[in-house]
Amino acid sequence: MKQSLLFVPTLKDAPKDAEVKSHKLMSRAGLIKQVAAGIYTYLPLGYKVIKNIEEIIRQELEKIDASELLMPALQPSDLWMESGRWDEYGPELMRLQDRKGRDFCLGPTHEEIITQVVRDYISSYKKLPFALYQIQTKFRDEMRPRFGLMRGREFIMKDAYTFSPTEEDLDIWYKKFTKAYIDIFKRCGLETKIVSSDVGQIGGDEADEFMVMSEVGEDNITYCNKCNYGANQEHSGLNEGDPCPKCGADLLVARGIEVGNIFKLGTKYSESMNAKFMDQNGKPKPVIMGCYGLGISRTLMASVEQHSTENAIIWPKEISPYQVHIIPVNYKNEEQHDLALEIYSTLRENGIEVLLDDRFERAGVKFKDADLIGIPFRIIVGKDATEGKVEFVNRYKDEKQLVNKSDILDYI
Amino acid sequence: MKQSLLFVPTLKDAPKDAEVKSHKLMSRAGLIKQVAAGIYTYLPLGYKVIKNIEEIIRQELEKIDASELLMPALQPSDLWMESGRWDEYGPELMRLQDRKGRDFCLGPTHEEIITQVVRDYISSYKKLPFALYQIQTKFRDEMRPRFGLMRGREFIMKDAYTFSPTEEDLDIWYKKFTKAYIDIFKRCGLETKIVSSDVGQIGGDEADEFMVMSEVGEDNITYCNKCNYGANQEHSGLNEGDPCPKCGADLLVARGIEVGNIFKLGTKYSESMNAKFMDQNGKPKPVIMGCYGLGISRTLMASVEQHSTENAIIWPKEISPYQVHIIPVNYKNEEQHDLALEIYSTLRENGIEVLLDDRFERAGVKFKDADLIGIPFRIIVGKDATEGKVEFVNRYKDEKQLVNKSDILDYI
Repeated sequence: MKQSLLFVPTLKDAPKDAEVKSHKLMSRAGLIKQVAAGIYTYLPLGYKVIKNIEEIIRQELEKIDASELLMPALQPSDLWMESGRWDEYGPELMRLQDRKGRDFCLGPTHEEIITQVVRDYISSYKKLPFALYQIQTKFRDEMRPRFGLMRGREFIMKDAYTFSPTEEDLDIWYKKFTKAYIDIFKRCGLETKIVSSDVGQIGGDEADEFMVMSEVGEDNITYCNKCNYGANQEHSGLNEGDPCPKCGADLLVARGIEVGNIFKLGTKYSESMNAKFMDQNGKPKPVIMGCYGLGISRTLMASVEQHSTENAIIWPKEISPYQVHIIPVNYKNEEQHDLALEIYSTLRENGIEVLLDDRFERAGVKFKDADLIGIPFRIIVGKDATEGKVEFVNRYKDEKQLVNKSDILDYI
Repeated sequence: MKQSLLFVPTLKDAPKDAEVKSHKLMSRAGLIKQVAAGIYTYLPLGYKVIKNIEEIIRQELEKIDASELLMPALQPSDLWMESGRWDEYGPELMRLQDRKGRDFCLGPTHEEIITQVVRDYISSYKKLPFALYQIQTKFRDEMRPRFGLMRGREFIMKDAYTFSPTEEDLDIWYKKFTKAYIDIFKRCGLETKIVSSDVGQIGGDEADEFMVMSEVGEDNITYCNKCNYGANQEHSGLNEGDPCPKCGADLLVARGIEVGNIFKLGTKYSESMNAKFMDQNGKPKPVIMGCYGLGISRTLMASVEQHSTENAIIWPKEISPYQVHIIPVNYKNEEQHDLALEIYSTLRENGIEVLLDDRFERAGVKFKDADLIGIPFRIIVGKDATEGKVEFVNRYKDEKQLVNKSDILDYI
C-alpha cells in the first residue's frame, strides 16, 4: 500500500484525556479516533492489527473444531427474563425500546442468545458436544470509560460457548480453550498469567482470567513466578515449563490487564432457559455449558502497552499491519523514487505486506511517523540509491545494515 | 470440517412467517435463525457464506485502493445534530440514552461519523483524494420486518466513502465503485441492473441502485434489456457489452432486490459539518463526498433466491461455504468409512474446503440435508467403495460419474 492513499492521521500530541502510554500512542499513530467517551473508530492501521488478531484467533479455534457464527447485538428482553438477568444486570446494560415499545438490550455478552440458538437442536446426547464462537461488537455502559480501548463502552470480543453432556467433557473443552488462549496470546506477542476469578455477572461455577502484566493493569493479582498461574491454584499443565501441580512458593504481586476470561457455566443458563437433551438412558438433562471470552480490542491495547516506548511502537511480527516499511529519504529524488518503487514491487510480488511512504514530506516527519506506525522492518532508500543500495533496519534488534537491492529478500 | 462437529440445524419445515423461497430455504438449511422480528443469528454455514462475500468485497475494493476501517454502531446525537439528521430521520432510527442521559442512536449509516473521522485531517488538497470503507452491522427499525434478511432490523453492510477535491474526481471514484460493484456481484453469482434512484434519507445530488432481478423484489424497475441500465439513463460504459450511451428501445419492467446503492453526496455533510480543505489557491472548500453502500446479508439472500429450487440450494462457486461435500451412504460400513476419511484427508491436504458427513444418519436424511446445504460438488461413497470408486456429482451440470479415488483431484 502507498501511504499517501492510506488514511493515517498521525498527531503530534495525544488527546488530553489519554492517561496511559498505549492510549496516547494509539491516538498519535492514527490507529484509533474517539467518537464519544469509550467509543472509538478503528482507523485503517489499527483495524489491520485487529484483523490480524482475529485471524490468529480463527486459526487457533479451528484447531479445536470450534465453528464460527454471528449473533445479533440487539437482544430482546424476553430472553433475558428467562435467564433472570434482565432484572439482575445493572446500569452497564444498555437498554432501548423499538418503535413498537418492545424492550431490547445491546449485548454485553451472549449466553441468552446462544442458548436460544441451540436449545431446539440438542434433542439427544448424540448431537453433543460442540463448540461455537463469534467475533462481535459488545456494549457495556461503563461508569467511567478510560484508558482508551481498555475500558470502553463499545468493544470487540471473541466469545465462545461449549455444550457438553457431562462435567468431564466440559473439563476437556475448558483445557482445550486454555491451551488455545495461551497460543493465541503468544502469537500476539503477549505472555499471560492465568488466575482464578470471580464469576461475576456471567455466573457459573468457576472462572479463570488471562492477565497481561502491566503497570496500567486494573487488577492486582498474585501469581507464581515459576509457572504463570495464580497463587494456590491448580494447574492445567498447559503452560510450557509448568513445574508443579500447585504452588505457593515463589509468589509475585503485580498489576494485570485482563485480556481473556473463561467460565464453567455449568447449567445456569440451560436450567433457566430449558436447554435439555435426552441422555443415553432417555432421561432429559440440562446441557452443561462453558463460556470463553477474549477481548480483541484489549489485546490490541495490551500489545501496544508492552511493545512500545514513549514515542514508538514495534509490533510483534504476526499482528503487525505491514511487515516492511519503505521510506525514501527524498521522494522527489529520481533515483530514490525509482529504487523505492522497484523494491516495493518486488516485495509485493513475493507476497510481503509492505507500506511505501510515497509522501513528499521532510525526512524527519516521515521517520517520526514511521516510529509511531511501528512496522518492525524498515528499508531506508537514501543517497546510496545511486549504487542500488539501501539501509535495512531490523527494529527488533535495533540493527542497521547497508544492503544491495538484490539481497533484500534474503534479509526479510 | 466434519459435519457432526459443525452446528447445522436443518429443519423439515420452514418457520410459518417465512413467505419467500430464500427465507424458507435459509431457515431450513440451518443458515440463519431468528432471534426477534427482523433480527437473526447467522449460523456457521450461513456465516461462512457471509465471510466469503466479505472477502470478495475486500479484494475488489483493495484493487481500487480503498482502505478498511471500523466505525462504532453507537453514534452520539451531537454529530447527527450537526448534519441536521437527528430531527429529520424518522422512527427507523433506533435511539437510546446512556446511563448519564446522553442521546445516542444505532447507526443505520455512517456519514456523520466518517465526516468527523476525516475533517481534522484533510487540511490541504495534498491529502486528497482517498477512499475508506467498513464492513459493519447496521440498524434500522423497519415498520414491518419481512422476507428474512431482505428487510431486517439488524443487518450487515459494506459502506464506503470517498473524499475528493473536485466534482471530476468524485466522478472518477463513482465509476471505480460502479465497476467494483459489478465485479463483486458477478463473483457472488449475481447479475445486476443499474438504475438511478432517489437520494432518500442519505441525501446528496445523485444516486444509483444495483438491482438483482427477482419476483420477490420490492421495487418495480424499468431497465434496458440490451445494456442492464435503467431506462433513459446515461451509461458509465462499464457493463460488458453496453451497446449505446443511452437507450430507451428494448425496455423491460421487472421487480428487483436492491443489493447496492451509491450516492454522489456532494457537499451535504462537509458543508454542515465543516469538513473543509485548502485548495491550491489557499481557499477553504468543503470536501466533495461519495457514499457507496452494499448490503451483504441481502446479497446472501439474493444469491439463495436465484440459485435454488424449492428444496435445494446450489451455491455459486466463490461463495459456497465448502467446495466439496463427501457423503458416505453408510458410515458404519468400514470400507465406506475408511475411503471417505481417506478422500477427506487428501482434499484437505490439497487446500480444498471440504465437508464430510460423518453422521450415523440414514442416507435419505443425509441427501436431503446435502441438497439444502447446497455445496456444488459432491462425492458419494457407496457400495463401489470396495473397488476404491466413488460417485462424483457436479450439481451445476447435474452430472454424475463413477470415479476412481486416485482421479478425484482431477475432477475438482
